[in-house]
Amino acid sequence: MKIALVGIGKIALDQHVPALQASPDWELVATVSRNGTVDGVEAFTDLSAMLAARSDIRVVSLCMPPMARTDYALTALRAGRYVMLEKPPAATLSACDMLAEAARRARVGIFATWHSREARMVATAKDWLAGKKIKSGQITWREDVRKWHPGQDWVFETGGMGVFDPGINALSILTEILPDPVQVLQARLEVPANRQTPIAAQIAFSDNISADFDWRQEGPQTWTIEIVTDAGTLSLQNGGADMTIDGASCAAPEAALSGEYPRLYSRMAELVHAGQSELDTRPMALVADCFVIGDRISVDPFHF
Amino acid sequence: MKIALVGIGKIALDQHVPALQASPDWELVATVSRNGTVDGVEAFTDLSAMLAARSDIRVVSLCMPPMARTDYALTALRAGRYVMLEKPPAATLSACDMLAEAARRARVGIFATWHSREARMVATAKDWLAGKKIKSGQITWREDVRKWHPGQDWVFETGGMGVFDPGINALSILTEILPDPVQVLQARLEVPANRQTPIAAQIAFSDNISADFDWRQEGPQTWTIEIVTDAGTLSLQNGGADMTIDGASCAAPEAALSGEYPRLYSRMAELVHAGQSELDTRPMALVADCFVIGDRISVDPFHF
Repeated sequence: MKIALVGIGKIALDQHVPALQASPDWELVATVSRNGTVDGVEAFTDLSAMLAARSDIRVVSLCMPPMARTDYALTALRAGRYVMLEKPPAATLSACDMLAEAARRARVGIFATWHSREARMVATAKDWLAGKKIKSGQITWREDVRKWHPGQDWVFETGGMGVFDPGINALSILTEILPDPVQVLQARLEVPANRQTPIAAQIAFSDNISADFDWRQEGPQTWTIEIVTDAGTLSLQNGGADMTIDGASCAAPEAALSGEYPRLYSRMAELVHAGQSELDTRPMALVADCFVIGDRISVDPFHF
Repeated sequence: MKIALVGIGKIALDQHVPALQASPDWELVATVSRNGTVDGVEAFTDLSAMLAARSDIRVVSLCMPPMARTDYALTALRAGRYVMLEKPPAATLSACDMLAEAARRARVGIFATWHSREARMVATAKDWLAGKKIKSGQITWREDVRKWHPGQDWVFETGGMGVFDPGINALSILTEILPDPVQVLQARLEVPANRQTPIAAQIAFSDNISADFDWRQEGPQTWTIEIVTDAGTLSLQNGGADMTIDGASCAAPEAALSGEYPRLYSRMAELVHAGQSELDTRPMALVADCFVIGDRISVDPFHF
């Protein structure tokens, strides 16, 4: 199937293009980007121009920041194209509703991807947790914003979500692997005095699950989810790449070796063939809940 | 059908009890409340005790603040009872997901009411707007918090939602009457320096719709929604009780004369007969979006 890629930046070149070029399902035939291009692929700078010129392209994949992405996605959907989106699917939940409605009306599908759910051991963790009783859980997601977003002030502006930008990856895994829904009971948001969005957050969920998100961790970075059940303790480490049960390492399934983006594009091919959408907004709802019921604490100003 | 009412405070005695007593569908046979009772109706102080003692009661209506309401609703749903809730359905969107899932698993229904949608002219406004093109809109929801919530500090604590407590009523009407979904594009939240939640908010939605929520209006109170279309201007006044088209008053339909709560209980009877749920979280999603992407401006401290 022919596909167009919109937004040719670092993530597109590092992940999307190699995944598409290695895929038996896809043929990358157009790009849309103000600056970036891909060798040998027809390049456009305007989405509407591409849609008008290339009615043979049924699928559009967007890899651009969430604030602008919604208009692009609506344009593509209304032109009758299937759309695939980077996480989060939009800056707001109401924008997600508009996307879902636009897809329904145009009778096409939309796939809102959560790339962390494709980390190597996530599916294995989900299978292991099925049917077990959750006693407690601890999410630790601590990284250095200066390392991952050097000088990017937008991450601290409203709409950038602050530390929830990486934190939502943990929540996308949590909502995927748990057998039952969770709710946010309490949250504490640490907001630098000179910024709009939190640099750290502590969250209490139901089922005694808690989360510690922090963007101030220098040195080793931590992305772990530990779930204590009535039948042992599961620990996902390195963002879902590794997993232990009661301290013993688990082997990765063969299907997991293909990598996050190849699996996402393989799933997109399935959705297009079936004429279906996959737009799970639960990770965004958990983040929004933290903003609505969270106490905001002013902390030291942050400078890159 | 037999029904139990949980939370016997002012709203229960002013609205729910008269509506139930006048209804041909319902028989109020039990109450659950720490303090309140209804003459001639069996009174419990504990929900679980009521559920255990009265397996003949299939339906439970909750009129209590949102933070505590979710646990009560989950308890009733898991005991296999239909549940009706005051607005908002919960303090968080993730709690709404849990309620929906609990209802599905127990094979019962849940009705999350939005009482403002039952205001006299809302259905008429919805019918008039169907098929028209929206050019712009203006919501003005200005009231005096000292008059409506005298001394109630909880409205300014997190979870209380601040000025969105009345504002969500406007959003419940907006999402009901518009033919298409809207998204939040920008928001400005005015938060008193000594409080956690906004006392005023200005919101920009798609379709050139804007909202002005303010809890500092003394004197006359304003609850209007004006929608400009390609075929004239609709104005809903007094929270949906009155309506004009291009300035000319519209007559209320006969069905609208029964009042908000009688109509809600009539709808609940239909849902129970059909074994269905109605849980529309769009008004909550719009509020959450404002908290996520809204800029917070510190304003003068507020004291009752």
